Amino acid sequence: MNRFLSILAMMFVLMCLTLSTAFTEDCLTCHREKTPAAVFQWERSAHAKAKVGCEACHGNDHSRIEKGEARVDIKVCGRCHKKALSDHQASRHGMGLHAGWGCTRKLPKRNPNECRFCHKEGSELPTSEVQCARFLKQSSEMREIGCNYCHSVEGSCASCHTSHGTDLKIVRNPNICAKCHMGPDHPQWEMWQTSLHGTLYTSLGRETGPDCQTCHMAGGSHDVSRGITMSSGGQPYDAAKREERRVEMILVCRTCHAESFARKELARGDTVREQSQGLVKEAEEIIGDLADHNMLDPMPDHRPPHPLKGSQLVLDNQMLYEDTSHIERLLFKMKKYDFARAIKGAYHQNPAYTHWYGNAEIKLDLIDIRSEASRLRERKKGGASELDTASGGTVEERLRTLKRKLERGALTPVEYEQQKQRLLE
Amino acid sequence: MNRFLSILAMMFVLMCLTLSTAFTEDCLTCHREKTPAAVFQWERSAHAKAKVGCEACHGNDHSRIEKGEARVDIKVCGRCHKKALSDHQASRHGMGLHAGWGCTRKLPKRNPNECRFCHKEGSELPTSEVQCARFLKQSSEMREIGCNYCHSVEGSCASCHTSHGTDLKIVRNPNICAKCHMGPDHPQWEMWQTSLHGTLYTSLGRETGPDCQTCHMAGGSHDVSRGITMSSGGQPYDAAKREERRVEMILVCRTCHAESFARKELARGDTVREQSQGLVKEAEEIIGDLADHNMLDPMPDHRPPHPLKGSQLVLDNQMLYEDTSHIERLLFKMKKYDFARAIKGAYHQNPAYTHWYGNAEIKLDLIDIRSEASRLRERKKGGASELDTASGGTVEERLRTLKRKLERGALTPVEYEQQKQRLLE
Amino acid sequence: MNRFLSILAMMFVLMCLTLSTAFTEDCLTCHREKTPAAVFQWERSAHAKAKVGCEACHGNDHSRIEKGEARVDIKVCGRCHKKALSDHQASRHGMGLHAGWGCTRKLPKRNPNECRFCHKEGSELPTSEVQCARFLKQSSEMREIGCNYCHSVEGSCASCHTSHGTDLKIVRNPNICAKCHMGPDHPQWEMWQTSLHGTLYTSLGRETGPDCQTCHMAGGSHDVSRGITMSSGGQPYDAAKREERRVEMILVCRTCHAESFARKELARGDTVREQSQGLVKEAEEIIGDLADHNMLDPMPDHRPPHPLKGSQLVLDNQMLYEDTSHIERLLFKMKKYDFARAIKGAYHQNPAYTHWYGNAEIKLDLIDIRSEASRLRERKKGGASELDTASGGTVEERLRTLKRKLERGALTPVEYEQQKQRLLE
Repeated sequence: MNRFLSILAMMFVLMCLTLSTAFTEDCLTCHREKTPAAVFQWERSAHAKAKVGCEACHGNDHSRIEKGEARVDIKVCGRCHKKALSDHQASRHGMGLHAGWGCTRKLPKRNPNECRFCHKEGSELPTSEVQCARFLKQSSEMREIGCNYCHSVEGSCASCHTSHGTDLKIVRNPNICAKCHMGPDHPQWEMWQTSLHGTLYTSLGRETGPDCQTCHMAGGSHDVSRGITMSSGGQPYDAAKREERRVEMILVCRTCHAESFARKELARGDTVREQSQGLVKEAEEIIGDLADHNMLDPMPDHRPPHPLKGSQLVLDNQMLYEDTSHIERLLFKMKKYDFARAIKGAYHQNPAYTHWYGNAEIKLDLIDIRSEASRLRERKKGGASELDTASGGTVEERLRTLKRKLERGALTPVEYEQQKQRLLE
Repeated sequence: MNRFLSILAMMFVLMCLTLSTAFTEDCLTCHREKTPAAVFQWERSAHAKAKVGCEACHGNDHSRIEKGEARVDIKVCGRCHKKALSDHQASRHGMGLHAGWGCTRKLPKRNPNECRFCHKEGSELPTSEVQCARFLKQSSEMREIGCNYCHSVEGSCASCHTSHGTDLKIVRNPNICAKCHMGPDHPQWEMWQTSLHGTLYTSLGRETGPDCQTCHMAGGSHDVSRGITMSSGGQPYDAAKREERRVEMILVCRTCHAESFARKELARGDTVREQSQGLVKEAEEIIGDLADHNMLDPMPDHRPPHPLKGSQLVLDNQMLYEDTSHIERLLFKMKKYDFARAIKGAYHQNPAYTHWYGNAEIKLDLIDIRSEASRLRERKKGGASELDTASGGTVEERLRTLKRKLERGALTPVEYEQQKQRLLE
Repeated sequence: MNRFLSILAMMFVLMCLTLSTAFTEDCLTCHREKTPAAVFQWERSAHAKAKVGCEACHGNDHSRIEKGEARVDIKVCGRCHKKALSDHQASRHGMGLHAGWGCTRKLPKRNPNECRFCHKEGSELPTSEVQCARFLKQSSEMREIGCNYCHSVEGSCASCHTSHGTDLKIVRNPNICAKCHMGPDHPQWEMWQTSLHGTLYTSLGRETGPDCQTCHMAGGSHDVSRGITMSSGGQPYDAAKREERRVEMILVCRTCHAESFARKELARGDTVREQSQGLVKEAEEIIGDLADHNMLDPMPDHRPPHPLKGSQLVLDNQMLYEDTSHIERLLFKMKKYDFARAIKGAYHQNPAYTHWYGNAEIKLDLIDIRSEASRLRERKKGGASELDTASGGTVEERLRTLKRKLERGALTPVEYEQQKQRLLE
């Protein structure tokens, strides 16, 4: 039965190819005038040479095309480019990016309820109702140009290959990766460019200086996540999976370097990640404690509700960059920008990104967070309307603090009950 | 009479050309040694080929040249390059940039008094006494390297073409635009570079990937403002002029794209601009209100006076980045840097600039501004030397608040009088 | 005797050369597999052509090589490349960078005790026990990738030339300098790239547009400090040395420009430096005064001790970016990032770096510092536990303030004694 379907599919493709150039001439008559770049690029493409015309991808129902219902998504390309499609879908590019973090299905501690943020029951393709808090807060225009311009990669090959060009010069140029992998949150392009790898590329070309594709798409694979040992939020995988991925990456490094050297370089990245996480954790503890004691300004229940968590304090990957307090905004910069720079800089061997843009900024953030915490604690004392609950407070206030600690996971349910009992006695 | 003058002018040019290469040999004898680059570049230039020598542009009065009185400004170049000159002068490059904003002559609500900031009565050429508050606060060295290095473009073709080179490779390279159109206030170069346009340029060249010149100097025009629908400060023109300009730009987009696609992309930019302006407006309101109630630290009358507005609060395009309060400085970053990035990023289709460097930063700024406002309001309450005038205050304080609202346009004169009467009753 | 040693050395080198290619074949058998890039690069190198094989640099004791004891440091390269070595060691690249500032030996006011931070008694080579406070606070991983990745330049030619490549394309590409000379603390690469020099380089190549090497390694010299008139921390040398260095630089400028022009451009850089230092000084005074009056939050004696200065306030080049107060962190940004951008931008003729990234940021920093100082002073008053010692305080508090002024050099010992006497009377 499966074989029968395969044969049918192949016949369909062959039929398309035979018909498509004939139809194509009809399309070009108008589209040379209407969409000149599309025609220009298609005419120079491998598709044109192989006689894969407009209809092969767009079909021949012009009214559907005009309504935007015949978009060429990843499934259309995948009809021919099967290996690329399966590689892509096995990679972070292929899954759940819409949700604002990599798919959680492979994380050690995963909340199965989170699947519904992106997937319909039983489906591996993400839905269009994306459940990312930052996305949900955005206007539809910002969602288009701000979120989905990059996060469409899971559904569209054109994200990197462009719509009608097939020139490998496009996708073998690190600039095409820069389109998304740049900026404050993950400046991989910038840090590669001024690393030794990027410098050798600039002066001597790809043969001597590796680019994004050399290491992350080795052998032409479209699984860009090979060799990556952590989630897109910087959470390391469990030990077994980490080692499996590390071996994959070292195989790539071995094209040029001794294994011992590669292991050491990557292990240093691991340690920089751990150390940086320690600093972030310290900041999170400070803010969690302030929230427990009602000291944030404003407190979450005095703000517009968080789209997913309501009036809860949210410091994880669903943290917002709007409608929060100043001290949370400092943490946002620390986690989302500076932490990412430090660890990605370390794995990409770029001292300025690891140290100045990364580690030094994280430490400066921590100074700011401690200072703001000091101000908020004093403010609470000065206010005199409530006692400083850190060193006392009414029983009610202290119960509320315990409750909040429980909610954010700083107390286990058992610890909570014990401390609550002690308080009530 | 006019014709007679034209003939005279033409004769003058012809005479110069005939004489100039003869004179030039005399110049080169010394200048090969004195200013080697100038000679090197001239010798390779179209001018040299066309036998346009030193004298044609610099004249032959060496004492004037030595005193710096024979600078080759735009009028000298315009004697031959008439079309370029008139295009240039019709564009934003050609008018009033010295004043820190585009010439106001075409803005819907224009204060005719502002002309005197840049122009002598009846003259369209800007004077050298520039009336930009930021410029006026600067040392003469910073004015040279900081302000006029870019804002000289209105008077000097060399800003882009360099002094003696005429190679089109210089002016057709986006890097020449970067010299000014980069950095925190308007990073057009950076955002183009990592947009799809810039990426195609980098991998496949100008034919496939458009650069600055392709869209903003289409057909070789020197009117770089064609198709721009807003002032340099981000204020949209009136509807009729906006549409006129939009049509100009879409004609350029049509070289590659379908009109419907181009319209939609640009309209999205318009919406991002409006939404961003809303956030800026919210911040301005907060600060205006604090100032009304005497809560800025320091208040404008406790600072060195603003060069144009004295002890008034200035939040418009004449806003300073020095000697203000912390909360105003937060607005400065928001308006001048992050707002510019969001809207220019949207028009240039760069997601990282629109969203992370733009929209997200604007929202983070707003968190900071609200937090600082909360601190300032509490401080006022805590100070106890004055009542919190937001919820009361002495009659005198409340009159002062009304007066300030009037001054900054938050009350009309009629509303002011009504509220004042009510207060005095 | 010296001559005898010279002959011995030369014989040693010749012997190595003769033996090395024979040995090399043995190395390559394994290393083509073990370290492919090293072999790939060596095979294409000038060394291979000149029959300088593995042993010539690494020796032939494989057990030492495996233990990492046969690293090819600057002394190994210097056996043949004598001129490059001596140039390098005369430059800032060659001395004391490990210490976090340029070697102090040539500074006008030099504390001879500081030599021990980097040097063993009588030695000019820096030791590995580096005495830079920021370095001392770092984890060993951050020291490797964050500090020494760049600061190894004094001991390793491979910092710029790469380990096995000798292609001049590598070291004549400004990108190789970018590896270290980029980022928030000294973005020379970025500012050159968008300067007129960089733009001409990008469009017309090295012949027309000078790069880093053109001006800072003129004539192929490895003394990159020729023509530099200040320490790496931005402190100008004394007048005589400044002029000597200026003359060196102008000789380079003279390759293209008139001397008068070059003098004027560089003098403007000097003035921008002086003006910027004035603003930094103002900020330092504010913070020094707050510390005198016990108003920093936290005060130095409530923090982890500074690795070199203990519980003292440190605002000089040994200033930390961790464990300080918020206001000191603002100064850190101002001094280390924005000041550097302003002055280096001015010397490199980049308006965006001089003005927006430099001067404007310095002034915005000063607003923030004054605002934070205002808050800290008020906090002290509000605290009521201590009187505001700026305008009084107990005798003990005022004595402590005097002591601190003495310690940070704001009072001479004589002034201190006088004021102390007056206070006690």
